[in-house]
Amino acid sequence: MADDPTRAYFAGTDRDRAAFEAGIKLGSIAHQYVGAPLTEASAPSLERAIEAATRVQPQVEWVRVRIDRKRMQVRGPYRYGVLTEDLLHVEVAVRVGSARAVGTLRYVTELDYPLMYLKAIGGPTKG
Amino acid sequence: MADDPTRAYFAGTDRDRAAFEAGIKLGSIAHQYVGAPLTEASAPSLERAIEAATRVQPQVEWVRVRIDRKRMQVRGPYRYGVLTEDLLHVEVAVRVGSARAVGTLRYVTELDYPLMYLKAIGGPTKG
Amino acid sequence: MADDPTRAYFAGTDRDRAAFEAGIKLGSIAHQYVGAPLTEASAPSLERAIEAATRVQPQVEWVRVRIDRKRMQVRGPYRYGVLTEDLLHVEVAVRVGSARAVGTLRYVTELDYPLMYLKAIGGPTKG
Amino acid sequence: MADDPTRAYFAGTDRDRAAFEAGIKLGSIAHQYVGAPLTEASAPSLERAIEAATRVQPQVEWVRVRIDRKRMQVRGPYRYGVLTEDLLHVEVAVRVGSARAVGTLRYVTELDYPLMYLKAIGGPTKG
Repeated sequence: MADDPTRAYFAGTDRDRAAFEAGIKLGSIAHQYVGAPLTEASAPSLERAIEAATRVQPQVEWVRVRIDRKRMQVRGPYRYGVLTEDLLHVEVAVRVGSARAVGTLRYVTELDYPLMYLKAIGGPTKG
Repeated sequence: MADDPTRAYFAGTDRDRAAFEAGIKLGSIAHQYVGAPLTEASAPSLERAIEAATRVQPQVEWVRVRIDRKRMQVRGPYRYGVLTEDLLHVEVAVRVGSARAVGTLRYVTELDYPLMYLKAIGGPTKG
Repeated sequence: MADDPTRAYFAGTDRDRAAFEAGIKLGSIAHQYVGAPLTEASAPSLERAIEAATRVQPQVEWVRVRIDRKRMQVRGPYRYGVLTEDLLHVEVAVRVGSARAVGTLRYVTELDYPLMYLKAIGGPTKG
Repeated sequence: MADDPTRAYFAGTDRDRAAFEAGIKLGSIAHQYVGAPLTEASAPSLERAIEAATRVQPQVEWVRVRIDRKRMQVRGPYRYGVLTEDLLHVEVAVRVGSARAVGTLRYVTELDYPLMYLKAIGGPTKG
């Protein structure tokens, strides 16, 4: 990252940026693909496309996307559903210098809410 | 389609509806996936996901999606692009009763515009 | 429309195109804005933005967008919802030459489905 | 935030979360609205809608959205454009406990890239 030309624009530490970049990836996924038509048959191709599109973004180490078949609602006369945030289970790991953050998006039953949270974060707290 | 419970809601003929449904599919594709991060490596998975998501929608006979690698712009410090309407070449065929419409979305050089048009339409003009 | 440079690309009649264009507008709206964060307080600005963005598109005579406050689901620890197709009530009128189509998107209770349909269509069935 | 029921899910400090939440908001904005039809006349309503939708999300203190009229490209036979990331200038401030982050999305000429970065971040680096 020492050579990264974007570095000069950032306030804070590599750790701050790792957390920030993890948030970007989750926000992007939720708002890009929600609304896409969906059945059990089409879900795997959407999972793969989201993963591939996430990997091309800056700082991504790995990403895993699963669409919850059990919560999927197929309905109406044509028997299909659409992707909602509640159906997404995403984990994405980003690395910035020696800092690393893992962000998760998943529906949390107790909260009745598709929560995005930092599952893990590590790295120096000084820049 | 005689049994289609949505039929009662429609004004016009099956041919009118075929044209309408072709338009829905193209408008949906353009506005669902534009903005997705993209490289040559990730393009095939996005093409497949768009095709699969389109096939689950009502009345679709077949669909073909291609992302134009030649016009794709990879840029910035992280060397990736995003999907734009200009990059999409979509053909989708819908059937409603005995009527059929083929809709196309493609960038038309002479117009400098990603045009959606009816490439073919056939069927009775009376309901 | 006689001078419209896109005309040469279209198969079919002005009426076919009117139906097609109505479909485009509804498909575009559903897939562009679904997923946007939403409360009763933010709904009016989203209705206005969707209407304004639709009016700039080709052939649109008028458009009306309403987000159903009664069906809106505010939930989770932060008490907000997101736009879904079920919440949208859209009517859009397009004119192509002497043909005119009115397309509607609304949740239809009997079908448990957000249906897009041609509410009205008129114009010569010969090109 | 002491009472925030989501707190137990988060690794790291309030400062980590502030950075993360700022990233979420910017990623969400970019991928929700990119592709929306746009002219100078429709831009103000879209700016207001994006601001209103961002304010309903967790932890947002303030947000400012501007669409760059000078870089806006109106083209094709119908003389309109679409929203791209390059046109967006967003600043969003989030607060988590005593930590605060300001995230920015803007097109950076030197990078030829719409960069999302932490413009400011402050708060304890210990949890």
